[in-house]
Amino acid sequence: MATRNYAFGRVDEATHPDSVRATIAEFISTFMFVFAGEGAVLALDKIYRDAGSSAGELLATAAAHAFALFAAVAASMHVSGGHVNPAVTFGALVGGRISVLRAVYYWIAQLLGSIIAALLLRLVTNNMRPAGFHVAVGIGAMHALILEIVLTFALMYTVYGTAIDPKRGTNGALAPLAIGLIVGANILVGGPFDGGCMNPARAFGPALVGCRWQYHWIFWFGPLIGAALAALVYEYVVIPTEPPHTHQPLAPEDY
Amino acid sequence: MATRNYAFGRVDEATHPDSVRATIAEFISTFMFVFAGEGAVLALDKIYRDAGSSAGELLATAAAHAFALFAAVAASMHVSGGHVNPAVTFGALVGGRISVLRAVYYWIAQLLGSIIAALLLRLVTNNMRPAGFHVAVGIGAMHALILEIVLTFALMYTVYGTAIDPKRGTNGALAPLAIGLIVGANILVGGPFDGGCMNPARAFGPALVGCRWQYHWIFWFGPLIGAALAALVYEYVVIPTEPPHTHQPLAPEDY
Amino acid sequence: MATRNYAFGRVDEATHPDSVRATIAEFISTFMFVFAGEGAVLALDKIYRDAGSSAGELLATAAAHAFALFAAVAASMHVSGGHVNPAVTFGALVGGRISVLRAVYYWIAQLLGSIIAALLLRLVTNNMRPAGFHVAVGIGAMHALILEIVLTFALMYTVYGTAIDPKRGTNGALAPLAIGLIVGANILVGGPFDGGCMNPARAFGPALVGCRWQYHWIFWFGPLIGAALAALVYEYVVIPTEPPHTHQPLAPEDY
Amino acid sequence: MATRNYAFGRVDEATHPDSVRATIAEFISTFMFVFAGEGAVLALDKIYRDAGSSAGELLATAAAHAFALFAAVAASMHVSGGHVNPAVTFGALVGGRISVLRAVYYWIAQLLGSIIAALLLRLVTNNMRPAGFHVAVGIGAMHALILEIVLTFALMYTVYGTAIDPKRGTNGALAPLAIGLIVGANILVGGPFDGGCMNPARAFGPALVGCRWQYHWIFWFGPLIGAALAALVYEYVVIPTEPPHTHQPLAPEDY
Repeated sequence: MATRNYAFGRVDEATHPDSVRATIAEFISTFMFVFAGEGAVLALDKIYRDAGSSAGELLATAAAHAFALFAAVAASMHVSGGHVNPAVTFGALVGGRISVLRAVYYWIAQLLGSIIAALLLRLVTNNMRPAGFHVAVGIGAMHALILEIVLTFALMYTVYGTAIDPKRGTNGALAPLAIGLIVGANILVGGPFDGGCMNPARAFGPALVGCRWQYHWIFWFGPLIGAALAALVYEYVVIPTEPPHTHQPLAPEDY
Repeated sequence: MATRNYAFGRVDEATHPDSVRATIAEFISTFMFVFAGEGAVLALDKIYRDAGSSAGELLATAAAHAFALFAAVAASMHVSGGHVNPAVTFGALVGGRISVLRAVYYWIAQLLGSIIAALLLRLVTNNMRPAGFHVAVGIGAMHALILEIVLTFALMYTVYGTAIDPKRGTNGALAPLAIGLIVGANILVGGPFDGGCMNPARAFGPALVGCRWQYHWIFWFGPLIGAALAALVYEYVVIPTEPPHTHQPLAPEDY
Repeated sequence: MATRNYAFGRVDEATHPDSVRATIAEFISTFMFVFAGEGAVLALDKIYRDAGSSAGELLATAAAHAFALFAAVAASMHVSGGHVNPAVTFGALVGGRISVLRAVYYWIAQLLGSIIAALLLRLVTNNMRPAGFHVAVGIGAMHALILEIVLTFALMYTVYGTAIDPKRGTNGALAPLAIGLIVGANILVGGPFDGGCMNPARAFGPALVGCRWQYHWIFWFGPLIGAALAALVYEYVVIPTEPPHTHQPLAPEDY
Repeated sequence: MATRNYAFGRVDEATHPDSVRATIAEFISTFMFVFAGEGAVLALDKIYRDAGSSAGELLATAAAHAFALFAAVAASMHVSGGHVNPAVTFGALVGGRISVLRAVYYWIAQLLGSIIAALLLRLVTNNMRPAGFHVAVGIGAMHALILEIVLTFALMYTVYGTAIDPKRGTNGALAPLAIGLIVGANILVGGPFDGGCMNPARAFGPALVGCRWQYHWIFWFGPLIGAALAALVYEYVVIPTEPPHTHQPLAPEDY
């Protein structure tokens, strides 16, 4: 009856026999997410000459990311914790919820998944160039950086509140849905300004395959900083009043 | 196994050690929600010269609010009850579900979260003026007031039915999703008339930072009246046939 | 811990002390649903001169109905079973799941909720005439009737599979979400042909307040026939292999 | 209290007394899904002269498929496993999760459901010709084939991770929602290129009734190959570290 959905925990995960499975799950889930997210952008490029300039396109992009991320997290949650995002992995690392070794495994898997997705998109679209992310006219690099920090803060805070906090509810559908939909909402905000990335892996594969590196650093530093901030706030401000873990080991059915 | 997701209850919450955590959670969740909701409106302003006049924009606005509110409630539900709205806090107070002191804490946190969100939006958008809420041409202040009362009645009734009623089901995903989606549906109704606010905090930060105070009172009185009505109806008409609380104290696993 | 979410059952519900609460819950939930559904149609009328002729409007209409119905069912599910639709009540009656008396109570409450919603919409929109449902040019009354039968069959089959079938899972979020979203999907089908009603109460209030009676009978006969067919198919074809109810009375925690 | 939602399992299902019920459930659920999916395409044809060339239409199509598939899977999950797709049935067969006989039953039911849906759509739309799927100008058959393989891989991987994996969580709402929404996301990708089918039954009925057979083979081979690949990857790479089934028979409350 227990919902053992989340691989988060303070155990030494590097030596855990599930590490290989978890790394593969991160690879495939990130592949699914990037294929749908970047693929939806290319699909709109296929329809429109002047893509990206209507509310309908913004909504289609947000929905593709939200729905695919929900499915990608749902499918990997019980295997790898459902990060599907190097910034989320970094936040979990900063909060002490995974080991450095496992984080490195996840990062490699996530970036590889994104590259393969971008390559396959280039193939199936008959060589359309991935669009990736850019900063809109009238918006500076610092604006975009702060925007990415804020948007990813909201994402990582949601991950903590629904998937990591030991006092959260035990409903297995809540976390992936909240994670998917906050990304959807945040793309509706960030879209016209800098694309609303929140995920270095989402940016990296299309940037590599489409050879679009301008402002690429923003989509690494912004998400990583935002996720780390959220992890620190949640871990050291919101959680502390709970009794310490070590003296009250959780029974298997409690997490 | 118990789903201790909701901080609602007739206990004296002012002295509860979790009050500080709960107040911080309300602050961050309201920040997330207002940043996404008002941010989506500004994102559409960035795309369109004449914003707000198409079904696509209405949908994008409703989706941003619905999805972000779902995530904001989901992330704070087990910490603060997931109000994210001074009107919901007022309804819970009128229904006797939280203490006056805690309500005051929440209100301050919610308003501060909204102000910080509006300030950060002004920063990252390179100084775009927050749009806030206004009443459409052809609609009077009383029309808008009644509309806000009705829309917030539906919201608060949903909060009661899914998150407060002791006889409700114990599914932790139901309440935040129902709360998020009724707000999305109601924005599709109220949008072209008065914006469909239902939340004084959602209105206050953007009004302050954008200096838009015309009709602002509507977005306080309407939601507060609607939420109070729903709380009274649910608490004293829908719930009463249950056995009284006081003689059957709920075990921790029942709420 | 039991999920006592559904008021369906073969007990004599007319004498049940919860009947009044349930009737009030049906009244308020139907009010919420019709206010949002018809309200979204009027909101689009406010934006557009020639409303109803774009995919964006179709989507906004479908989303408003789906999201509001989800919330309305979620909020009333544990009190009244969450019918919010005279056709669903009729299907439950045909399947032997509620008593005739309770069905009559529900029908009156649902129709009253719809009328009040339509009246309040007329008030807050400064006297806009409710649009209700009509049959599109090029489509005959029999086409629309069969369409309503098919669409409501799908709705009632979903209600049976997720909220009534004693062998269904016990997840409290599944039923209202499935019910809301099948209505959303079916409006995307039926919208341009006959509006995609599936609910006599949804049609009745706006028809009365807007004085639009042409083809109104279709939106009664179609949903009632479709719901009855689905109830008969599910009750007598899909369920039968389970052991009979009467010899294995369900403990309270089983439903 | 157990959530016995899924009919997947290594038992000999051909002799199971529930086989007839399961086959009927697949028939009706596939009917519902194809009626909504193909129906939404025809609804857009009713509105637009030059259908299929805007983000709003893409979104409406994706939403109709996602929402209807969610409801169709939710309503049949506890009866038949909620395949609603010959490719998913093939993946479950390749992974050894259902018997050949049951797979054949399901395939016949799914194709029949699709044909009836297409026939009824032709009737209620006053003889509109079903649109089915085609490959866009500028895209070759091999591109479309690989696209269908990738999209269906993501779908089947999601099915495995949320509905089949014995180590998954026990939340009954997660699987149908993840399955519905990954299909929605993938249609936002595949729509402008080849329609984003992922389901031979979804293609077959409209092709037969609309007499559109060009490239039809792609919508069989692509989904079947993609689903088989995902089943093999999940079954033999992601699952293996679990202890073998046969030595640890699951108690009824564990699945």
